[in-house]
Amino acid sequence: MEKKQRNIKITLKYDGTKYHGWQKQGNTEKTIQGKLEQLLSRMTEEEIEVQGSGRTDAGVHAVGQVANFHTYTNMSLDDMKQYMQTYLPKDIGILQIEEENLRFHSRLSAKKKQYEYQIYLGKENPVFERFYCWHIDEPIDIEEMKKASRFFIGEHDFKSFCGNPKMKKSTIRTIEDIKIEKQDDFLYLQFTGNGFLMNMVRILTGTLVEVGLGKRNYDEMEEILNARKREVAGVLAPAQGLFLKKVWYE
Amino acid sequence: MEKKQRNIKITLKYDGTKYHGWQKQGNTEKTIQGKLEQLLSRMTEEEIEVQGSGRTDAGVHAVGQVANFHTYTNMSLDDMKQYMQTYLPKDIGILQIEEENLRFHSRLSAKKKQYEYQIYLGKENPVFERFYCWHIDEPIDIEEMKKASRFFIGEHDFKSFCGNPKMKKSTIRTIEDIKIEKQDDFLYLQFTGNGFLMNMVRILTGTLVEVGLGKRNYDEMEEILNARKREVAGVLAPAQGLFLKKVWYE
Repeated sequence: MEKKQRNIKITLKYDGTKYHGWQKQGNTEKTIQGKLEQLLSRMTEEEIEVQGSGRTDAGVHAVGQVANFHTYTNMSLDDMKQYMQTYLPKDIGILQIEEENLRFHSRLSAKKKQYEYQIYLGKENPVFERFYCWHIDEPIDIEEMKKASRFFIGEHDFKSFCGNPKMKKSTIRTIEDIKIEKQDDFLYLQFTGNGFLMNMVRILTGTLVEVGLGKRNYDEMEEILNARKREVAGVLAPAQGLFLKKVWYE
Repeated sequence: MEKKQRNIKITLKYDGTKYHGWQKQGNTEKTIQGKLEQLLSRMTEEEIEVQGSGRTDAGVHAVGQVANFHTYTNMSLDDMKQYMQTYLPKDIGILQIEEENLRFHSRLSAKKKQYEYQIYLGKENPVFERFYCWHIDEPIDIEEMKKASRFFIGEHDFKSFCGNPKMKKSTIRTIEDIKIEKQDDFLYLQFTGNGFLMNMVRILTGTLVEVGLGKRNYDEMEEILNARKREVAGVLAPAQGLFLKKVWYE
């Protein structure tokens, strides 16, 4: 009997603290993609290649990353989930496993993505959240940040917010929404858009924080976009505050 | 001018994951008490001894531990707090610093204490909470646990729930209240009482969990108390789910 190829979609979360990011680079041990490929190859006894919806930087977390892989295994989805839950390290968790059509590609088929950045504004050390936030212990003007964020909504060339100086492809992206919300001692910045450049959310966050701290005026945002130069935008916010929240497909 | 002795009360939180518990034992580096004494001795240029309201086991956390120390320094409380915030490791946080009368003793003056135990009941790996909960992935009957918990309210000899087989002092304690509450995928067990024996909250939790899983009947609790033998009580719940929440003084 001929074996049938299948395309498996995985939705997962991970604590990125101990990893060199999503994408494998030589030492597969220390990347999420590497860990998954290693485990799935063992599970299926095939050489598995895993595609992610996008790379996350070292230290960045995910609560809804999506990946897919092709396989000839006839294992049930439940058995796969059970296997992965059992053998994956405790800082990676499987939320869902589904079967997709063979052409589904977690990156190329993605229509929309959402990231969230967590800032801690309290006075005390964020003992239990120390790997999951940026601690800013200065007065911050959230209304000014909101005003600045409006300049980024819609389709723009985000070259000034791209961390890859050698980027050759288009740096035009559409941001559908930026929500900035304070809850207790935390400030959450939620970015939803059709795609994000390397470090884009972290540079947007760093720039918005500079506005909040009074180091920049909110109406400088237009100039920064127009400059199309990384140097004119703000600092790169620390990786540890960033979460990939959700990826949408058609 | 003669220097005046002062008694400083500290309220603190810590992530116990990396520590061998509260109490120093030779290698002071790896205990909370050791860390504090080291830092406060440096801060005051005196040999500081820190008293805690009670020991917490290796891996146990605190969100309201209380400690005190005597000193001749004339530093302001704000400066002390600032110094500690700056130089303590990121997994220890200072919530409050106050000056107390010289006879105040964080353990001997304590009137009441509260601990909370966190159990995670979800199917997925608790990726971000993995160091802060006990993961139980089996159906658990919370009503049965509540029925069992009522046997422990009031003054009892808790010898069966004492982790120290050589305990010579009284094992009689009063539990004022046990609250068992489910919120989303988490089950919280909150114990309030006038004092707790070594491992007592963890053994109570382990026993209540065995009732919830149907391994024991709730009405066995009385027999367990009467037996005054550690072996008849349930398992020791893992340290990582336990938090010292609050200590009350007069």
